[in-house]
Parts: sequence; structure tokens; C-alpha cells
Amino acid sequence: MEQNLNQLGRQARAAAKALAQAKTETKDAALRAMAKAIRAAQTVILAANAKDLEAAKTKDLKSSFVDRLTLSPARLEAMARGLEDIAALKDPVGRVSEKWTRPNGMEISRISVPIGVIGIIFESRPNVTADAGGLCLKSGNAAILRGGTDGFNTARAITACLQQGLQEAGLPIAAIQMVETTDRAAVGEMLTGLGGTIDLIVPRGGKNLVARVQAEARVPVFSHLEGICHVYVDKAADLEMAKSIVLNAKMRRTGVCGSAETILIDKGAEQYLEPIIRTLIDAGCEVRGDAAAQQADADVKPATAEDWSTEYLDAIVTLGLTDGLDGAIAHIAKYGSQHTESIVTQDQATAERFLAEVDSAIVLHNASTQFADGGEFGFGAEIGIATGKLHARGPVGVEQLTTFKYQIRGQGQIRPA
Amino acid sequence: MEQNLNQLGRQARAAAKALAQAKTETKDAALRAMAKAIRAAQTVILAANAKDLEAAKTKDLKSSFVDRLTLSPARLEAMARGLEDIAALKDPVGRVSEKWTRPNGMEISRISVPIGVIGIIFESRPNVTADAGGLCLKSGNAAILRGGTDGFNTARAITACLQQGLQEAGLPIAAIQMVETTDRAAVGEMLTGLGGTIDLIVPRGGKNLVARVQAEARVPVFSHLEGICHVYVDKAADLEMAKSIVLNAKMRRTGVCGSAETILIDKGAEQYLEPIIRTLIDAGCEVRGDAAAQQADADVKPATAEDWSTEYLDAIVTLGLTDGLDGAIAHIAKYGSQHTESIVTQDQATAERFLAEVDSAIVLHNASTQFADGGEFGFGAEIGIATGKLHARGPVGVEQLTTFKYQIRGQGQIRPA
Repeated sequence: MEQNLNQLGRQARAAAKALAQAKTETKDAALRAMAKAIRAAQTVILAANAKDLEAAKTKDLKSSFVDRLTLSPARLEAMARGLEDIAALKDPVGRVSEKWTRPNGMEISRISVPIGVIGIIFESRPNVTADAGGLCLKSGNAAILRGGTDGFNTARAITACLQQGLQEAGLPIAAIQMVETTDRAAVGEMLTGLGGTIDLIVPRGGKNLVARVQAEARVPVFSHLEGICHVYVDKAADLEMAKSIVLNAKMRRTGVCGSAETILIDKGAEQYLEPIIRTLIDAGCEVRGDAAAQQADADVKPATAEDWSTEYLDAIVTLGLTDGLDGAIAHIAKYGSQHTESIVTQDQATAERFLAEVDSAIVLHNASTQFADGGEFGFGAEIGIATGKLHARGPVGVEQLTTFKYQIRGQGQIRPA
Repeated sequence: MEQNLNQLGRQARAAAKALAQAKTETKDAALRAMAKAIRAAQTVILAANAKDLEAAKTKDLKSSFVDRLTLSPARLEAMARGLEDIAALKDPVGRVSEKWTRPNGMEISRISVPIGVIGIIFESRPNVTADAGGLCLKSGNAAILRGGTDGFNTARAITACLQQGLQEAGLPIAAIQMVETTDRAAVGEMLTGLGGTIDLIVPRGGKNLVARVQAEARVPVFSHLEGICHVYVDKAADLEMAKSIVLNAKMRRTGVCGSAETILIDKGAEQYLEPIIRTLIDAGCEVRGDAAAQQADADVKPATAEDWSTEYLDAIVTLGLTDGLDGAIAHIAKYGSQHTESIVTQDQATAERFLAEVDSAIVLHNASTQFADGGEFGFGAEIGIATGKLHARGPVGVEQLTTFKYQIRGQGQIRPA
């Protein structure tokens, strides 16, 4: 079946109009119906997934990739529950964030509205279909999903369930559509806005995918290319707290974008080097360090120039001394990715300067960088983290998927000359 | 003197860091010193302007263009006062817009911060130099200004005053820099972000300039290509109010982006056609209309298909009947520019549907579209109006020139597995 991408875009635009006016109850009913449909279609979805996995075997794919592609009854249940969690969130649309009256009596309100049509380009993780579709629906946006070829059958089976939920709630099924052509040119068309029908692109996947999207997109993009997150241990840090935060920031999960990749230690606290390095190595982390770090512990490997700007997403960390707070701020400005950075110190003034001067989406004092996550912010599910500076910065949840307009209520006001 | 654009960018980036931490008093002192410097340099600026005007005479420029380029003592005084008005605005930086505590005790604040470096590309209106430079400074952003060739000497003389003000207040003069090369390739370099140093572009000028910026920019842009603003007169409108609002929306100033270009009249209120058309024609407005409008008044010229999507910026309007509220909403969606639209009606439910369903930056009930202006919103001076949907929508004042970051204050919190 030949799919007409421009028609897909037009259908999405029409659906977006209906969604923008949809009642909260209707959207939530659709989300719950989607969850139900996914549970009911368990056999069908797992069969589709098996077909994808069969095809994946014939290719030379990484085992981590195949693992991410693999569905199980438990993962399907988590997907369904995720949709129910989104249904339980507050509706981000229609919120009056500001309201004031002008001297001439006009009342101005700033009210949240959906963005419109959001294109999601992802690799083969099956849950992205349900998560992204659900978050877009809740925020009143139509979604156009384009997943990787390797998860094609799985994504199609899940999309069918989402559309069933939309239909049951009386919403247009074009509110969540999947690009069914596996032609890579389809991504290019989405990145140029699909004839003016796509307002925003969200890429979900590895660095190569995000880099391509950032380089080619002609519409706004919410994304982060990488999370080179830093922990700075100040000379006024409590050592036990520093060890605990560094260990958690690096090792709780090494594959998430909020995991720390570089540990900077105040040269005024050189005595912290050894115990912090030991904590990391004992937890199974490879430490690559500067001369001082190598001297502090014989197991430290020398860090190359490249290490300081590397996102390992693995049990490896770069560690070294820095010239106090100013050195740390300068280092982060030079090597960081404006994602998430933390300072450990008992000195309040030093902490405040760090929080003020480090130009990242998320800056923390005495807390782990692994809190960089919409759920941990209380936003509910997130569609990703943005390191761009405009509109959305940090976790992108349903609220960040809305924009606003000004409504002005008058009684015949005209503007004087 | 050869100017190195990349160096300009690096200097701007360094200045932006200092500005982001500058105290309100320092920024305001600089703005006031700039105003003083402009007043003191009146002779020098007017001489520079005379040089530009002399050169302009040798070219075949429109008289409206030459008028915009021309400075006078009164215009210079308005420019100086504009800077003092900006000094009097509340500092948009450092405002905590939200603050909450997580169950684990972490306190999360969403705090406003400057965007960074803003590139302003404009034609030859001299006041843009002072206005844009002042607004960027107040919002903590460094500005890179690139004006049209025809106003080069004027812009340079004004920039010198702005930099004198910065210097007197102890701020880096690179906070406001002017691109001194008249090479058009400089614009191209700015549009690609000047080696990662420009965060945002704001074009100020005609449709050709804005269209080029929108087409070529690889960094975010705040702009509107055109303002095809509509007034919809509902059958439940008060006729006197409708006449007053239509007249003001079209004729108060025809050259501003918030002026109405199309008047839609409910076909259930055909009797309003004649008095509304007469009001416009008596005020000197050319009316181009559909068959019904032509029948209502012999002075109405036939509207072509193109007229409905034309921004005249002149005393010309397109006018016709539409099929009630739904017809008006559909017409605006098809022909509008998502800028500003108004409904005139005494029916509250109809008004609320219009305010909810019309997808424009500004929607008004019983008020003139000419209120589409940062000053009229109470925002103070504006750098322009944005019709894009992300970050800034509608008037772009100092607040819209900021972004935000999340500051998290903890007591050693780590994230559980």
C-alpha cells in the first residue's frame, strides 16, 4: 500500500484542530481505551514483535539493540500502564498562566494551547510509539510517528491499538499516525515540515539520529545530542556526601543521559581524590584521570584530551582536579553539553554562584545528576530532555508540549491615534 | 578596517556571560548613560545621518524609505527616551516563575535567565539600533546588530553611544556590537549562527528581509512574515461598535502589522455591509469586495482571489460575507497569518468559540486589532511580533527575550535504583 505523506500531514493537521478543542475527559477516555486495547491485543503485538526479532536475527545487530526491540508481556503491561499514568496527569491545555486588565478595561489572558502537529522520529524501541503518542494526545497535539525499520511490525501493531482507543473515544484516528513507508527519504520530508504540516520534531534515539535531525531539520526540534554531565566536588564538600553523590551520579544507571561523565575535584581538596576514585573503582567503574588522579591511585588510566568531552554512557568516567569554582565553571562551559551539572559543597555562597553561573538546563546543589528526568521533577512522563534554550529546556513533559496564545476581551475598545 | 566576524561572535559570547550575571542597577545605569551619550552626540549623529542621506540621494530609493532613514533632533530625543523607558522596566532576569519541593526534600526552582547572544538583522531605520540594543541589554543578552547599508554611518554613530554607555557602567562594550562589513555574506554567516555563537535571530524590516531570514536561518528566529489580520463582524454585533472597530483596525495606522487587511461579515447580517463599507470609504479606504459587497455599494471594487491573502499595509481592505462563525474560522485558517484576529459580537458564546478556535498569536473580542503591540499589552518596548508558535508568540518584549533553567537545591539526595 502506497502511503501519501502529504496526505498524512493534512490529516494530522485536521485532527490537530479537533484535538485542540477536545475535552479532557475525552482525551483521557481515549488514553484508557488505548491501554485496554494494548492488553487485549497482547498476542497480536507479541507476534508482530516476533516477526521483527526474526528479521533482526538475519542482520548483524548489537545485542543491546535487540534487547531494546524485544517485547514481553511485562513490557506490554508497563506500556499500557504508562498510558493510564498519562491519563491521570492534569490537562496542560487551557491553563490561564497570566491574566491582567489594561487601563482601558481590556482583559488580557495568556492561555495554554497545543502546539499542533508533532513529528516523532525514533529508532526501534517499541514503547516510544505508545509513550509519544499518549503524551502528544494528552497535550492536544496530533502525532506523526516514524520508527526504525527494525521495529516496523511492532510499531504498526501498537499504533493500531492507539487508533482503536482514539476511535472508541470519538476522536479522529489521524491524531496518531504512523509513517508506513520504510523509505529513508520520508525522514527528510518530515524534517522539512511535511509541506508545512509539522510544527515540531522530537527525535528519540542515539547520537547519530539526533545529529541528523539537528543538522537537517527546518522546523523546531526538541532534543539533546548528548549529556556530558559534570559533578564538581568543592573543597567545602562533605566527603561522605561527595562519595555518595558521585557514585550515584555515575553508576546508578550508566546508560541514561543524566549520568555523570566527568568528575571535577577542587584542587583545594586534593585529599578527596583518593577516596572518591576508590569508591568509583570499587563499584566497577573505570576511571580515566589527569596526572593528579593517576598519582592518587595506580588503577587510574590516563585521560586523553578527547575523554573530557566524551559521553560514555558506560561504567567509565573522566576525573581530575580543577582550579576551584571558577575553574569548574570554565571547564563545564568548555566541555559540557548544557544538560545537567551538580556541585557538592557545604558553602552556600559557592553553591549559589554555581547555580547562577553554570549555563545548563538543570543545575543541582548537593544532589545527583541522575534526577534529570521528568518523572523526578514531578512532570509525569517525558518525551525527552531538551538542551536547546528556547521554549522547552530540560525535561519535556506534556506541559512543554503546549504553547500559548493571548485572548483579549473588550467592550468595543479602539486604539487612540 | 577588516572585521573578523567569528571574533565578533566570540566577544559577544564572552560579554553575554558577564551580562547574565550583571546587576539590575548596572544594566539600568548603562541604559541611562546611553541615552545621555545620544543626547550629547546629537551633532555627530545627525552629521553621520546626513552622510547616509546624501548617499541615498544618488540611489533610486522610495521616499518612504528615505523618510524612515532620516533623523531629526526630535527623533533622536525619542530614541534616548526609549532607552530610559527600557531602564524603567522591571528586570526580566532572575525571576522565579515556579518553585516546588519534591517528596525527597529537593527544592526545584524555574528561574528566568538570558538567552545568550541575539543577532538583529534590520534595514535602515536608525532607531532599531538603540531599541534592539537596549532591549537585549535589559534582558541580559549580548546583541550583534547588522543594519542595512543605507543607514551604515548613522548606525555606527549610534552604536558608539551605546558602547559609551556600557563602558561608563562598567559593562563589556562587546555587549552591543555592530557588524561593520557591508558584505551581504555577513548576513548569511549570522543566519548560520556565526560558529555557534548566535542563539537567536530577530529580523526587523520588510517582507523580503524576513522571508530570507526564515528561509536561510539555521538558528531559531522570532519573526512574522506578514500580518494578514481579520475582523469578523458577527450577526450579533452591535453595528456602531462594529463600524468603530473596523475603522480603527484598518485605518488608525495602515502600515503596522496589526492593521486589519480583511473584514468578514456574517451573511446573517448582510444589512451591515453597506454602513460598514461606507464608513471605510468615507475615511478614504479602498474597499475590494465579493459580489455581495459590490452590490451593497457601487464604489466597491471586485476582489481577486489574491486579495484575500494580501497584506496591503495601505488604505485598502478586502471585505466580504462569510457563513457565520464557522465560515469565519475556516476563512482565517485558510488565508490568515496566525497574527491577530478580532470578533465583534454581543453573543458571549460565539465570542468564546472564536477566542478558543482561532489559532493566532492574539485573538480579540470587541476590540481593535491595532492593540497588537507590546506597549499596549503593558510589556513596554518590543523588539517585534512573533507568529511562530514556540517560545515567543505575539509581542516580543524583554521577558520574551529570556529563557529559564532549573535550579535544584538538595541536602545530599541520590536517586534510588
